Amino acid sequence: MSTIPSLPTAKSIQVDTRGALILDEESPETRDSRGIYLPNYVEPVSHIAVDIGGSLAKVVYFTRSPEPPTSPSIAATKGSSANNSSVGTPESASPGTPTTPSSPSHRHDPLARVNGALTPAVLDNGNNVISGLPSLDTSFRDTLLRRVSVHHLPGGSLNFERFETEHIDECVEFLQTLIERSAQINGVPIEEMRKSVKIMATGGGAHRFYELFSSQLHVEVRREDEMECLIEGLKFISLIPDEVYYFSDELIHSVSHTPAIPFKTPTMLQNGVNGVYERPSPDPPRYAVTFEQNPTPQLPCLLVNIGSGVSIIRVDENGSFERVSGTSLGGGTLWGLLSLLTPATSFDEMLDLSEKGDNATVDMLVGDIYGQDYSRLGLKSTMIASSFGKVFKKDGKKVKFSAEDISKSLLYAVSNNIGQIAYMNAEKYNLDRIYFGGCFIRGHAATVGTLSYAIRFWSKGTKRALFLRHEGFLGSIGAWIKNIGEERAE
Amino acid sequence: MSTIPSLPTAKSIQVDTRGALILDEESPETRDSRGIYLPNYVEPVSHIAVDIGGSLAKVVYFTRSPEPPTSPSIAATKGSSANNSSVGTPESASPGTPTTPSSPSHRHDPLARVNGALTPAVLDNGNNVISGLPSLDTSFRDTLLRRVSVHHLPGGSLNFERFETEHIDECVEFLQTLIERSAQINGVPIEEMRKSVKIMATGGGAHRFYELFSSQLHVEVRREDEMECLIEGLKFISLIPDEVYYFSDELIHSVSHTPAIPFKTPTMLQNGVNGVYERPSPDPPRYAVTFEQNPTPQLPCLLVNIGSGVSIIRVDENGSFERVSGTSLGGGTLWGLLSLLTPATSFDEMLDLSEKGDNATVDMLVGDIYGQDYSRLGLKSTMIASSFGKVFKKDGKKVKFSAEDISKSLLYAVSNNIGQIAYMNAEKYNLDRIYFGGCFIRGHAATVGTLSYAIRFWSKGTKRALFLRHEGFLGSIGAWIKNIGEERAE
Repeated sequence: MSTIPSLPTAKSIQVDTRGALILDEESPETRDSRGIYLPNYVEPVSHIAVDIGGSLAKVVYFTRSPEPPTSPSIAATKGSSANNSSVGTPESASPGTPTTPSSPSHRHDPLARVNGALTPAVLDNGNNVISGLPSLDTSFRDTLLRRVSVHHLPGGSLNFERFETEHIDECVEFLQTLIERSAQINGVPIEEMRKSVKIMATGGGAHRFYELFSSQLHVEVRREDEMECLIEGLKFISLIPDEVYYFSDELIHSVSHTPAIPFKTPTMLQNGVNGVYERPSPDPPRYAVTFEQNPTPQLPCLLVNIGSGVSIIRVDENGSFERVSGTSLGGGTLWGLLSLLTPATSFDEMLDLSEKGDNATVDMLVGDIYGQDYSRLGLKSTMIASSFGKVFKKDGKKVKFSAEDISKSLLYAVSNNIGQIAYMNAEKYNLDRIYFGGCFIRGHAATVGTLSYAIRFWSKGTKRALFLRHEGFLGSIGAWIKNIGEERAE
Repeated sequence: MSTIPSLPTAKSIQVDTRGALILDEESPETRDSRGIYLPNYVEPVSHIAVDIGGSLAKVVYFTRSPEPPTSPSIAATKGSSANNSSVGTPESASPGTPTTPSSPSHRHDPLARVNGALTPAVLDNGNNVISGLPSLDTSFRDTLLRRVSVHHLPGGSLNFERFETEHIDECVEFLQTLIERSAQINGVPIEEMRKSVKIMATGGGAHRFYELFSSQLHVEVRREDEMECLIEGLKFISLIPDEVYYFSDELIHSVSHTPAIPFKTPTMLQNGVNGVYERPSPDPPRYAVTFEQNPTPQLPCLLVNIGSGVSIIRVDENGSFERVSGTSLGGGTLWGLLSLLTPATSFDEMLDLSEKGDNATVDMLVGDIYGQDYSRLGLKSTMIASSFGKVFKKDGKKVKFSAEDISKSLLYAVSNNIGQIAYMNAEKYNLDRIYFGGCFIRGHAATVGTLSYAIRFWSKGTKRALFLRHEGFLGSIGAWIKNIGEERAE
């Protein structure tokens, strides 16, 4: 065989995303943690990426399988449809039920959460495997593939997990189990396995918990810059078909703060059909979003990452970036306020409450102050003049406000504010595309709608709010991706 | 005597502010409602201006007296020092104690609140009195003054009152009493008095309560545009010596979000002495502000009016203006949240609580997430990454947070947010001066400091936050001023 050609320096993403497929939703709780199956990708060394933020630690890792793993829902309804017996995904024909921190059942059973296994490097020895590069010509690629051993058949899944930063030990325990189990499955000693594993750590906790991870897991831990990882993750994930979605202009128009209209959960249509409704009707409107099915790189853009707090990052055409702004009124603010003002104990409960609420009982609208529109300034009577403005009664009369109304009001307040600050930065830097990332949105209709509406309102329709199904994993995906690049340079 | 010269068309303010004097503070509650004595001004027709916002109705009216009214505090300590027996300010040698809506004692005694009396127009007949114009030459002016009857000696006070919009009937009752009393004092029938009085109404309530005012008071009611009045009020009031104040750069530097440093009430020094403190010390720092003693017109500028909600208005050099932005996260939001989260029942109580609080127990700071500064991005470890970010505990542990800490956190959150949005607009329109108006600030140290600091932080010291002692009365002052201009044109 001829010499392996030297590889181009890694500026482009080295992961073969051809045919990438977002796996089915396990449950509504794992809405944003669906695995991504990459049929053409081979990972030579096992990497785990961890992004530890103020509230949540997000984990990404890759496991092998020649075919997409079967989801439990498919297994339950149709039976197992794929052969999952290749090395790398043994017992778990179904990948195990991923959980979110709000499901206590899996909290103390790390084994239940481990999807497949990592591949130890020792099995790579003697095989110069090159992960699929779109630029290689097809025949050469086919030749390489024939040389590859069964361990290196391309194909496997990116897996996603979340843990609470406050219980970081659970995350450590999970990783310990993943590594040990991978050693078992591959039949190698734990020491060999550990040499093959690298943890790419980003987020604030990469600094805060560096010692913990190093000492507990006995593997190499590399710290990666949070902003770099966010941007790398964005660039990568936005290329996956059906990853990016947005509300169409017609939909945004029909999403308003009209009081007493119950807000229904959107029907997510795969083929991008948009419902258009001019005014509230007795038949409650269903909203749909448009998915980006054939994505192309979308730079320059603005990335608004909403976690406990908010970071706003501008990205140039060539991928260079700068954190230009942020706000401390983020997810942590909303969750904190609602945890004291409502009986809700999880963010999903809070979002459920908000869906049933009417903000006009707690918000002061333009119409409440003016008795009408303030049309001279383009302010409609239904617009919010003062969030929570009806709550304070100086005469001391205690009025009881419902948890639903309070939740909706504060969700709107926080979302509108983020949308406004995001818009102002997009305008300042002349950017039309605004991506929203972070664990705040969770595909929730009212949040997506409010952010979309805010951007449309302030930009008069010239800018677009874009959302990501794996919104919370940008940093961890980016940390994982960055290592692939490093790998190439070695 | 020669003919009275024709008057220039009213573009400039027709009120003679030479020698204007802000009267002593009656009590801390009336901090922003101090009368303004104008020794050279004569008002030919009595006007009352009312600015009715979402929460508060602000009233301005002018009453005659040749000398500044005595304040009760001066009378108590030194005895009556001025002769207040001229027509126009009879019995009340002291102007009567103005009250804020939080003092229930005066709520049902409108007589106690009426300062002096309005002047009926009927007493003007035959005298072509021209209110002092700075452009007239001195000798001619002196001649005019000799001709003037005792009713028209220049000199009198602008009086300020506040009512809750929710109890607008109390405002109506007050005005009724003012008009009736003025008729009595001047010895004219009530019908004549009513012909002399015009109510200039602005704010949202001008529309909402137009019928109420007209039918109850039997006087002419004119509605004036809210934004126009705000700007007129700003242009006028910023010319009064010692009206405008700001934190010096050194002071802003020492105002930080350092946890556990109790924030003391600033000592307001009349002669503008600034204390400079480099770091927190065992001797708690006292903050001082600089007063604008010799003000000059300060256009162009940005006006940020913080009431229940926030309006942001840009003003050009020539005084033309445009409402360019706003936010629904305003005073109403803070008061509403704190009324549910703390035992406080008034805004002053809420501000008191915040002075004693430590926001670091409820806010997530940069240091909490990173364990250190995020110096690469210029984020100090003491900066707030997520407001209220420590409150939500997913494991359901209920931690009790103190009312003081909650109050400080939310005051910072709302103030910082307003400062950030204000800054972004100032930058967009290339304006260096940012005036803060509205009833939110109330001269409160932490609020003034936070807004000053936010502007300084975001602008890297290139822009300045400016405050007004009569911050809540911009709209009502403007409505009053606009009528003077109209008067001239007749």
